Amino acid sequence: MLTVKNWPPKGGVINVGGGVFAEAMKEQGAEVYEVKWQPPAHGKVELIDILDKLQGRDDIDEANQKAIERFSSAKPVLIDIGIAREVVPGFDDRMLLHAGPPITWDKMSGPLRGAVIGAILYEGWADSPEEAEEIASKGDIQYSPCHEHSAVGPMAGVVSPRMPVFILENTTHGNRSYCTLNEGLGKVLRYGAYSDEVLDRLRWMETVLAPIVKEAIELSGGIDLTSMIAQALHMGDEVHNRNRAGTSLLIRALVPYLIQVDYPQADIKRCLEFINSNDHFFLNLSMPAVKAMLEAAHGVPKSSIVTIMARNGTEFGIKVSGLGNQWFTGPAQIVKGLYFPGRSEEDGNPDIGDSAITETSGVGGFAMADAIPIVQFVGGTPEDAIRFSEKMYSITTTESKHFNIPILNFRGTPTGIDIRKVVETGILPQINTGIAHKDPGVGQVGAGLVNPPWECFEKAIVAFGKKYANGS
Amino acid sequence: MLTVKNWPPKGGVINVGGGVFAEAMKEQGAEVYEVKWQPPAHGKVELIDILDKLQGRDDIDEANQKAIERFSSAKPVLIDIGIAREVVPGFDDRMLLHAGPPITWDKMSGPLRGAVIGAILYEGWADSPEEAEEIASKGDIQYSPCHEHSAVGPMAGVVSPRMPVFILENTTHGNRSYCTLNEGLGKVLRYGAYSDEVLDRLRWMETVLAPIVKEAIELSGGIDLTSMIAQALHMGDEVHNRNRAGTSLLIRALVPYLIQVDYPQADIKRCLEFINSNDHFFLNLSMPAVKAMLEAAHGVPKSSIVTIMARNGTEFGIKVSGLGNQWFTGPAQIVKGLYFPGRSEEDGNPDIGDSAITETSGVGGFAMADAIPIVQFVGGTPEDAIRFSEKMYSITTTESKHFNIPILNFRGTPTGIDIRKVVETGILPQINTGIAHKDPGVGQVGAGLVNPPWECFEKAIVAFGKKYANGS
Repeated sequence: MLTVKNWPPKGGVINVGGGVFAEAMKEQGAEVYEVKWQPPAHGKVELIDILDKLQGRDDIDEANQKAIERFSSAKPVLIDIGIAREVVPGFDDRMLLHAGPPITWDKMSGPLRGAVIGAILYEGWADSPEEAEEIASKGDIQYSPCHEHSAVGPMAGVVSPRMPVFILENTTHGNRSYCTLNEGLGKVLRYGAYSDEVLDRLRWMETVLAPIVKEAIELSGGIDLTSMIAQALHMGDEVHNRNRAGTSLLIRALVPYLIQVDYPQADIKRCLEFINSNDHFFLNLSMPAVKAMLEAAHGVPKSSIVTIMARNGTEFGIKVSGLGNQWFTGPAQIVKGLYFPGRSEEDGNPDIGDSAITETSGVGGFAMADAIPIVQFVGGTPEDAIRFSEKMYSITTTESKHFNIPILNFRGTPTGIDIRKVVETGILPQINTGIAHKDPGVGQVGAGLVNPPWECFEKAIVAFGKKYANGS
Repeated sequence: MLTVKNWPPKGGVINVGGGVFAEAMKEQGAEVYEVKWQPPAHGKVELIDILDKLQGRDDIDEANQKAIERFSSAKPVLIDIGIAREVVPGFDDRMLLHAGPPITWDKMSGPLRGAVIGAILYEGWADSPEEAEEIASKGDIQYSPCHEHSAVGPMAGVVSPRMPVFILENTTHGNRSYCTLNEGLGKVLRYGAYSDEVLDRLRWMETVLAPIVKEAIELSGGIDLTSMIAQALHMGDEVHNRNRAGTSLLIRALVPYLIQVDYPQADIKRCLEFINSNDHFFLNLSMPAVKAMLEAAHGVPKSSIVTIMARNGTEFGIKVSGLGNQWFTGPAQIVKGLYFPGRSEEDGNPDIGDSAITETSGVGGFAMADAIPIVQFVGGTPEDAIRFSEKMYSITTTESKHFNIPILNFRGTPTGIDIRKVVETGILPQINTGIAHKDPGVGQVGAGLVNPPWECFEKAIVAFGKKYANGS
């Protein structure tokens, strides 16, 4: 199953597994090639059996090419802003959307609960956090994943009916995607904070920011996000945790129209200052942009490509193009990273948010070699950042046509995670992410690096095997 | 003189000079360490004698530290826009400033002549290019280098009395620097074009753009350029031939004030679109910013640090901190690069412009490892870009405190070119640059890589030796 070309190198000693032997050989002056070896499929015989039936299959490879072709030809364009309940498909009056796979109140982590409480207060369904919590817990609210409504939300990812959302259209295939507007840093709903400051900001965003930006978008005739992301990747962003360039380019695209909108100058100025003060503003556009691309790639029979990776703070879930609407889940992992002063891993909530849609599409952690300065924010070294990107080619199908990595000789970003490759190599997708405090109402405590749990891919390959191992 | 520590590596074979021996050794399986050796000071005995008296001199090292300290503590801030004849020191009525060292009409290359003709027409001193050329050639105009007026100009660098200029102040030491506003791409005066289109644009810049941007700068209270350059270097710029990030950050800094200025909305919109459409707009701020820093470092007795590198299209000139106002010149070199379709090296004028002030300060070509995508514009590979930056540490005194290179583990950019090191190693500063057509009136034909001529450094070390070889 594992073919290794030109190996072993002539005249050297190959050391597999442990390090002591290698050290001893090095001391004797021998050239030692170290290989971090682990058995395919974690050595599980039943998975190896499944993989054997799925490898080298032209029909699966062709399905994956079809999915990639749909992904690559998608053209996400920012076309409008609308009110969630009016524009997001399948939105009900007493519904809240959230990040990650489906979850019930009793399983929700602190930051997601905090964001739900905040959204209930914002909607006016309750007058106090206590009342909101009671409503939230007694089955009165319908919870639904953003991803089941063509939407994505960073961190808690809560979208309530009256929230304004960006509307993107994939002009090639016609599908649309949605995301709220980024609230900025500090105490914000997406990190589970719900103080008056948070709710006042959400109301201002609804009544001032959204209408003004909406008019500017309309005047602009739509903003091509593929080109903007491609440029941002050449300007130090990986468009997940570094969005300074994307935000700058968005401002450049909007400003000639922003100054023309029919609103008081003081309001326009405040909008500009708000966007300007938040280098993550573009995240809420990079996410739905790649969501629109990946949604176009979803639903191709026999395709083993991952189209969603998302976390609700308790569980991590993935979907696979050829496996319909089934989620494959495992426990959300603890993020290893850099914590703000006075904070530590003990404060951190497990991995949360739909923002891993960026990695699913081949940017974010997969494009960390485009964003070397990010290691000062999420940890690691410049070499790590390059290594992460390089490693992801082992589990992906192709290289992006649109997004590339100058330092790797302009190689296209690693694109189209294949569950077969993940299970065979045991290499998990590399995600970088913000870290929320585990308690409701607190906010961000750091940023770091994390992987999905292995279980998601094990469950997915089993389901894929069940459906496709025998050829149809 | 050349001390090499830990050399040779144990057990290896050292190959100096030719490559055939190395290849042969490699074929026999030996470890070969190749050294591109060239004799110090190009093997010239008289230069080696001078160097011997200048090396290991505490007084010179201390002078250089003092110059570096002044450079590093400088804080260039964009404070205003003014009219050249009113604000640039030493400006006379019939004077034109130009890039590079002093030059007379008869020695001027095509693009500089073109820009002079254009400036004469713009000033209304002549009604036709023919008349302008006559005035230009008959000694009626006083030509003076920008650098002798604390100014810098990209390419031809022509500044005429009524042109608006950015005013920067080094708030630490109080010195000011000046630069015109960037005209954009295509047919522009700085590349020697002088058609009506060029002159109309200059008039619009004088009457609309400059007053509007001036008012925005005043409202902003001043813009800190050290921080902006430091950020831009982490966003794919080297602030010489890539200024997309710097331009974006400048727009972000100006826009909240631009929308408040007391001018018609249509004019403000056109200004925004003009800046927005020109990713080199920031060049005319990065240049005077580092000029203000380097001017603070000039004039330190016994300092062998280069404070100016500039080209007028015919000659390349440098100045050295401890050598007063003397220029050391040599012939401007042909630029090796990527030419626009239909253009070739035959069309290109020799190296021109004050923009090598960026390299003098340790950015531009010295920070190419910050701007890997630039190789698609100036030629070379990503490895070349990194190698250029690494090589420059051999001829510089220190690493920048403000500007760094993430891919080199956030190492400070190579800062403070020491003429002793250039002459000893024979390594010339690495410059990247735009290429002007050699004829007046045409414009840009490409971009590429170039070095100063060796003569500048040879002349400078001789003068330095004459002044300081005997200790004072």
